[in-house]
Amino acid sequence: MNADTPRFLRACRREPVDRTPVWIMRQAGRYLPEYREIRREHTLLEICHTPELACEVALQPLRRFDLDAAILFSDLLVPAAALGVDFDIVENRGPVVKRPVRDQAGVAALTLSSDLKELDAVFETVRLLRRAIAVPLIGFAGAPFTVGSYLVEGGASRDFRECRLLMYREPGVFDDLMERLADLMCAFIERQAAAGVQAVQIFDSWAGILSPAEYRRHALRPTRRVLETVKTLGIPSIHFGTGTAGLLDLMAEAGGDVLGVDWRVRLGIVRQAFPERAIQGNLDPMALLAPPEMLDRMIDEVLADAGPSPGHIFNLGHGILPDTPIDGVHRMVRRVHERTQAAPSR
Amino acid sequence: MNADTPRFLRACRREPVDRTPVWIMRQAGRYLPEYREIRREHTLLEICHTPELACEVALQPLRRFDLDAAILFSDLLVPAAALGVDFDIVENRGPVVKRPVRDQAGVAALTLSSDLKELDAVFETVRLLRRAIAVPLIGFAGAPFTVGSYLVEGGASRDFRECRLLMYREPGVFDDLMERLADLMCAFIERQAAAGVQAVQIFDSWAGILSPAEYRRHALRPTRRVLETVKTLGIPSIHFGTGTAGLLDLMAEAGGDVLGVDWRVRLGIVRQAFPERAIQGNLDPMALLAPPEMLDRMIDEVLADAGPSPGHIFNLGHGILPDTPIDGVHRMVRRVHERTQAAPSR
Repeated sequence: MNADTPRFLRACRREPVDRTPVWIMRQAGRYLPEYREIRREHTLLEICHTPELACEVALQPLRRFDLDAAILFSDLLVPAAALGVDFDIVENRGPVVKRPVRDQAGVAALTLSSDLKELDAVFETVRLLRRAIAVPLIGFAGAPFTVGSYLVEGGASRDFRECRLLMYREPGVFDDLMERLADLMCAFIERQAAAGVQAVQIFDSWAGILSPAEYRRHALRPTRRVLETVKTLGIPSIHFGTGTAGLLDLMAEAGGDVLGVDWRVRLGIVRQAFPERAIQGNLDPMALLAPPEMLDRMIDEVLADAGPSPGHIFNLGHGILPDTPIDGVHRMVRRVHERTQAAPSR
Repeated sequence: MNADTPRFLRACRREPVDRTPVWIMRQAGRYLPEYREIRREHTLLEICHTPELACEVALQPLRRFDLDAAILFSDLLVPAAALGVDFDIVENRGPVVKRPVRDQAGVAALTLSSDLKELDAVFETVRLLRRAIAVPLIGFAGAPFTVGSYLVEGGASRDFRECRLLMYREPGVFDDLMERLADLMCAFIERQAAAGVQAVQIFDSWAGILSPAEYRRHALRPTRRVLETVKTLGIPSIHFGTGTAGLLDLMAEAGGDVLGVDWRVRLGIVRQAFPERAIQGNLDPMALLAPPEMLDRMIDEVLADAGPSPGHIFNLGHGILPDTPIDGVHRMVRRVHERTQAAPSR
């Protein structure tokens, strides 16, 4: 890549950057008054399926902050519509799947639409966004396990009980579900790339509930298939999960140019264990609600932990919280850029 | 220790055993019909504060299964009564603290009763149990962070928001809370030991929510104080937490003869990293709801992961689930003993 390549994309490839790039998971979100304004009149799914609105909310944080990437505004379950899944997103509760998928018949009923026409609005959003922004656009897709966990549980879960039960009682059915979701995600990402995304983040947000043995048995292969598809598209992938300190080697085996981790995983250890990967993370989102001097300290700790080598993308360890003060976000973005600017060969 | 020392205590010291000892977190619990029978007439706190009842429920699993240890029946919040904390345990919800502790005044109001007379029933339970059982009796105490998280949140939490906020906004107040809880736990354990417990498990169940930096700043020192107190008492300690793959070196630094981990941490890695410790765990409690052949396979994987060296105590990775079938428990206890019996020098 040449010197004009945006620093976010350079960091994905572990090339030197003029300063550490920063973006924020869920940067288009409820902490922004202008986002809440739109949400007063539209549901989350309406926004996802209306390109002008989805484009607008993705642009909102870029107008306020000097962010180094935009991300497609979406929800983990959005693509499930192309498998015929009937769901809603309920305020303060998250996705609610009308008929949870808990047996062979339920899995067999998930048939991938051949043209993904249910998701046309998503691809149109990507095209609109690419025309509207100067920074790279990150595509959005859930890993098979995490999306599958919503389908099996019927929604958000604390203990992933139904999901683990299905995995232990009917591993073949569970694997069938995983493969169908991998098919969906591969097609979904291919179409996002064709529409213009320049990188993809694969959200395996809940993989951390799995034992390493179960991850290897049920999550690794379908996730690898998705990440290999991204590779064939020639764009970098970020492989993200929370609570993954015990799974990192397996997640790295599944793939990803960038390993994204939450605040419970030391970046320094990820660096050391996977020198051939870039890393993304990992400030505790709650730090943005701390007093300025504490926030500064925690930002600096993340930067110190990441170390001076190229290939760090600064981000939170999980999505930004709805009651995050805007001032904290300004402070964070500025500080990351300032503190990492000193080393020109960084 | 001589050859008559029970295998549980030998395993704590990494001495060879005739077979791997096994006990079950929450082994006196709702999966047992005879426990539910008692709970129909008594609340959990009534049982904790009535030595005959607390003794009876602790004995129940020993009558059914060939378990290698008993544990004091208690709840993480029970000792908080000696700090003047007003709380209740609500069915299907867990502890509810009447006035959550979220500021300096709240922490300052927590004054340790000089004689722990609020907990006399607990110590009497220990004395009764020791007379009633042949296997070793494990004492029960929460680590300062985990008990503190209930006091700050006011109950169980998914994101530990209030706890992290207090830590980031008023670290001095948070540390004051931790030290008071450490004082309490040291006194609580001393009295349990005087009454006859032969080991202690320190439950830092929710430490896994912390970043390594925060664990070091706020949890390590008070936890170490508790574990050092156990050491002076001459009994072994089990240091347990869930989701701790990223914290193990710090938890080991805090202490514990035995490191207890959940199913998301590979026992083999713990063995390798901390050869001087014994290990406890780590079957996914959900495995007991799996078909027999899957349960067997998962048990065998835990045993294989733990390896043949001495110093493994078989347990679940977290408390046994209320809807666990009794047959699965029988199967597990038998299988662990049978599979590890072959090697006499194990």
